[in-house]
Amino acid sequence: MVIRYPNGQTYNSEKLISTSHSYAHKTILYGNRGMTLEEEINQSNQYYLNNGIAVIHKKPIPIQIVNVDYPKRSAAVIKEAYFKQPSTTDYNGVYKGHYIDFEAKETKSTTAFPLANFHEHQIVHMKACQKQHGICFTIIRFATTQEIYLMPADLLFKFWNNMKSGRKSIPKDDIKEAGFLIEYQIQPRVPYLKYVDNLIEKNF
Amino acid sequence: MVIRYPNGQTYNSEKLISTSHSYAHKTILYGNRGMTLEEEINQSNQYYLNNGIAVIHKKPIPIQIVNVDYPKRSAAVIKEAYFKQPSTTDYNGVYKGHYIDFEAKETKSTTAFPLANFHEHQIVHMKACQKQHGICFTIIRFATTQEIYLMPADLLFKFWNNMKSGRKSIPKDDIKEAGFLIEYQIQPRVPYLKYVDNLIEKNF
Repeated sequence: MVIRYPNGQTYNSEKLISTSHSYAHKTILYGNRGMTLEEEINQSNQYYLNNGIAVIHKKPIPIQIVNVDYPKRSAAVIKEAYFKQPSTTDYNGVYKGHYIDFEAKETKSTTAFPLANFHEHQIVHMKACQKQHGICFTIIRFATTQEIYLMPADLLFKFWNNMKSGRKSIPKDDIKEAGFLIEYQIQPRVPYLKYVDNLIEKNF
Repeated sequence: MVIRYPNGQTYNSEKLISTSHSYAHKTILYGNRGMTLEEEINQSNQYYLNNGIAVIHKKPIPIQIVNVDYPKRSAAVIKEAYFKQPSTTDYNGVYKGHYIDFEAKETKSTTAFPLANFHEHQIVHMKACQKQHGICFTIIRFATTQEIYLMPADLLFKFWNNMKSGRKSIPKDDIKEAGFLIEYQIQPRVPYLKYVDNLIEKNF
C-alpha cells in the first residue's frame, strides 16, 4: 500500500527514519535524500500550488517532433524527435501579483558558480523579463556542500557582461552577499518564495 | 536570397501581392493567409518581444520520453515518447509588471463557443492564477467569420460553473459583451495586448 501525504507525495518511511537517525547532520541530509534540485523545486512548487500560495511550473522540454505513429485504438507514439534549445528559462509563474522567472542550476565547484551553466538566450530572456518588472533569479545548488542560494538576476548580468574581460564564474562570496542562503525545510523543501519576498520588498 | 523584416520574419512577396489585390476584403484576408491562430499569436508575441513590449511565450507541448538513442557524433534522437495532457494553459509571460496567462482556441460554430474546448485542469489553473492577481483570458477565433475575441476568464468561469445545469457553450453575444473584438493589424497581426490594457484598467 502506498501511503500519501495530503499533497499527493508518497510517504517514504525509510527516508524519514534515516533522517531522524542523523538529526545532528540535518542540513546535509535534507538536501541529500536522493532528489535532484529539480525534483526538490518541483515538489516545493506543488506545495505552493496546493496551498494557494503561488502558481509556478517548470516548462516542458522543447522538442522538435519529426515522426508520429497513430496506431489504431491506442495513443499516438512519437517515433522520431529531437531536443531543441529552450528560448527561455525553466520556471515561471505568478506570486502575489508578481511575475516570477528563474532557472535552477547545480555545480560541483565549491568556490564559484561557472557562467558556462548559462546560455546567452537565457540572459537575454531574463533581461527582457526584468524590463517588464518580472522578478528574475537563479536557484543555485553547490552540490558538494549541499548549500542552496537564491541569486538575483542582477548579479548574474553583472558577471555575464564582464565575462569578456576575463572571469568566467561568479565567486561564491558574491553570491552570498547579493543573494540569500535558502535553508531546507520539511514543507516546502526549498522555501525559495520567502527570499523572493525580500526581493519584492527591495524592488517594488 | 531570403529577404527579412527587421524582426527576422521572412518577406513573402506573394502573400503581400495577394493582399493588396483584395483590399476590399481586408478583414477576411488578414485572418486567412493560411496561418493558424497559434501561428498568428506566436508571430504577434515575437513582435512584442522584439519591440520590448512584453515577454510572452507558448509553452512547449509536454511529452513523456520513454526511449532516447545517443548515436556517436550526432544529436540524441528520441525514439519513443508520448503526448501528456498539459497541466496549464498554453501561453504565459509578463507585460508591464503583470503576469499574463491565456489559452487560444478556434471554433467552427458561428453562434457559441463550446466548453468542450477546455479541460477542467485549465480552468483550475486559470482560477489559481487569478487568485495570485494574474491576468487570465482566452483568445477565441470563430473560424467561419474570421472574428477573434479576447474573452476574460471570469466569463469562462461563470459558464463552466453552470455547465452541470445544462448549457455546454458560451453564446457569442455574451463573449461580445464581456470581451473584446480584436481587430487584425499588419504588425502585430493579433494586437491582443491593446485589449489586455482594458482588463488592467478595469481590475488594477
